[in-house]
Amino acid sequence: MKTIPELLELIENEIAELDLPEVPANLYEPIRYILEKGGKRLRPLLVLSTFSMFDDDVEKALKPAVGLEVFHNFTLLHDDIMDKADLRRNRPTVHKKWNENIAILSGDAAMIIAYDLISEAEDKYLRDVIKLFNKTSLEVCEGQQYDMDFETRKDVTEEEYMEMIRLKTSVLIAAAMKLGAILGGANHREAEKLYEAGINFGLAFQLQDDYLDTFGDVKVFGKKTGKDILEEKKTYLLINAYLNASDEIRNRMDKIFADKQMPDDDKVNAIRDIFVLLGIDKMILKEIEKYYQKGREILMSVDGDSKMRDQLVIFFDALKNRNK
Amino acid sequence: MKTIPELLELIENEIAELDLPEVPANLYEPIRYILEKGGKRLRPLLVLSTFSMFDDDVEKALKPAVGLEVFHNFTLLHDDIMDKADLRRNRPTVHKKWNENIAILSGDAAMIIAYDLISEAEDKYLRDVIKLFNKTSLEVCEGQQYDMDFETRKDVTEEEYMEMIRLKTSVLIAAAMKLGAILGGANHREAEKLYEAGINFGLAFQLQDDYLDTFGDVKVFGKKTGKDILEEKKTYLLINAYLNASDEIRNRMDKIFADKQMPDDDKVNAIRDIFVLLGIDKMILKEIEKYYQKGREILMSVDGDSKMRDQLVIFFDALKNRNK
Repeated sequence: MKTIPELLELIENEIAELDLPEVPANLYEPIRYILEKGGKRLRPLLVLSTFSMFDDDVEKALKPAVGLEVFHNFTLLHDDIMDKADLRRNRPTVHKKWNENIAILSGDAAMIIAYDLISEAEDKYLRDVIKLFNKTSLEVCEGQQYDMDFETRKDVTEEEYMEMIRLKTSVLIAAAMKLGAILGGANHREAEKLYEAGINFGLAFQLQDDYLDTFGDVKVFGKKTGKDILEEKKTYLLINAYLNASDEIRNRMDKIFADKQMPDDDKVNAIRDIFVLLGIDKMILKEIEKYYQKGREILMSVDGDSKMRDQLVIFFDALKNRNK
Repeated sequence: MKTIPELLELIENEIAELDLPEVPANLYEPIRYILEKGGKRLRPLLVLSTFSMFDDDVEKALKPAVGLEVFHNFTLLHDDIMDKADLRRNRPTVHKKWNENIAILSGDAAMIIAYDLISEAEDKYLRDVIKLFNKTSLEVCEGQQYDMDFETRKDVTEEEYMEMIRLKTSVLIAAAMKLGAILGGANHREAEKLYEAGINFGLAFQLQDDYLDTFGDVKVFGKKTGKDILEEKKTYLLINAYLNASDEIRNRMDKIFADKQMPDDDKVNAIRDIFVLLGIDKMILKEIEKYYQKGREILMSVDGDSKMRDQLVIFFDALKNRNK
């Protein structure tokens, strides 16, 4: 059985050796660019890890695993256009470095390449794998659409927010864990458990992202904190702050958000202080812990190689305690 | 065996009954909108027609056939953003009716739905079908990329242009004809023949489009002619005009294109007159005839139900003689 760092190396090598055509350069260069080192490779790593709980020959799962990474990067490519993001992993986004048309089209091509890699599954698993991927990809699009819809809505509930991040983030993490199980020949029950564990880890993972965006140590986090606040993004934090605030504090928040003169840093600090005052920071940490524990519990109940399972638990613990 | 109008009706019904989710509305409404009546349904019709040369139970091929139509409409959705087109089939394009972000994302979702429908192929054909579709979709993206690359190039050759339209248009028509054969249980040789026939029909089809854009009767054509000329698009016509023109005529063309004062209609007329003077109109009609004949010849050599084959030949003849 391989260790997680060994699996990561396999993934990096496979991505580096991806056999993309040379021309047209404007179609394939952006895909090479966004796939270069820098990502966490979380999704392919999860595929190979859960696969290893049932089968040792990870080569069999390598191409579909990388397919999920390519799919994830396709979503980043298109999301960055929609969010008008200039930077991704400290480098210009594709639509900035090239242009929007190239980002749209190379994103489309990346999605097809993802399908092509995923189709490298063995015959006996092909239909299940394609079905899982179709369902998951469509849900990820739904999540992105809800995320955009929420921008212009004032009344987003916590329930709606959690459903949005389930679709936008969790289902792909869950699908990665289930994909490894399917390819490893696990039975339906264990595969479903891994999917459920993935949903919970995914929710914890996204809530941790939200927490770090507001409360992360800027020196460690590596990027500016407070972006969600400045965009008045209806995250778990903001939704619960409004829900728990007195009329007076709610008015104060409205005024801060409406104040066009207030410098960005002051605005972030003021809202962050209110979150702390209301105990929302503790509330979200508790929620993160809850989902991690749930995911961990389900993962521990899976009937597979226990050494690999333990590695995965340690990996998720580190992910939970990450500060960037 | 069904007639072509009967197959068309089956396709329209299947599209009308497509079971798309209701929410998020901004994701699925644009897909319903672009799939509404108005298209030629050429690709699914080809799937069902070639299928019928080998098998009578067209129900087996219906969902994959519609998958190709959904894929074709995905390309229209994204191409219209890239081309900044305001109208499609006399209605506002999706990015005009909604917005660009919605057009990008609903296009992505449409591609996934296309994959989902195509995956409804029987188990024994699934891998071949997915492989054919992956290859074809990627080629269509390559064709669109070349088309965009050519906008800023002056030295596009006829050979490059023909390769571009092969990728952008022909391979999907060829894949439709091959897909029907695969799903109908045809042997590899007949399936390849149908693919080759499709390549030739596709080239003829696109050259006919180019011809009509410049020489179509505006009353019959239903849209303004001369768009390609005004965009100085390097079509078969323009490339060959430059190739066959004397220095004097070449200079005259350069001046016409550079003249910012000249009214659009005058410009179109002037360039069209030069095409006629150089005999380029006759040249492209000969080329169209050549590809149609080639396609027809290959189609006639396919070993399948001859009644269906004859219907298909008549259908392609009508397509060749279309004036809109």
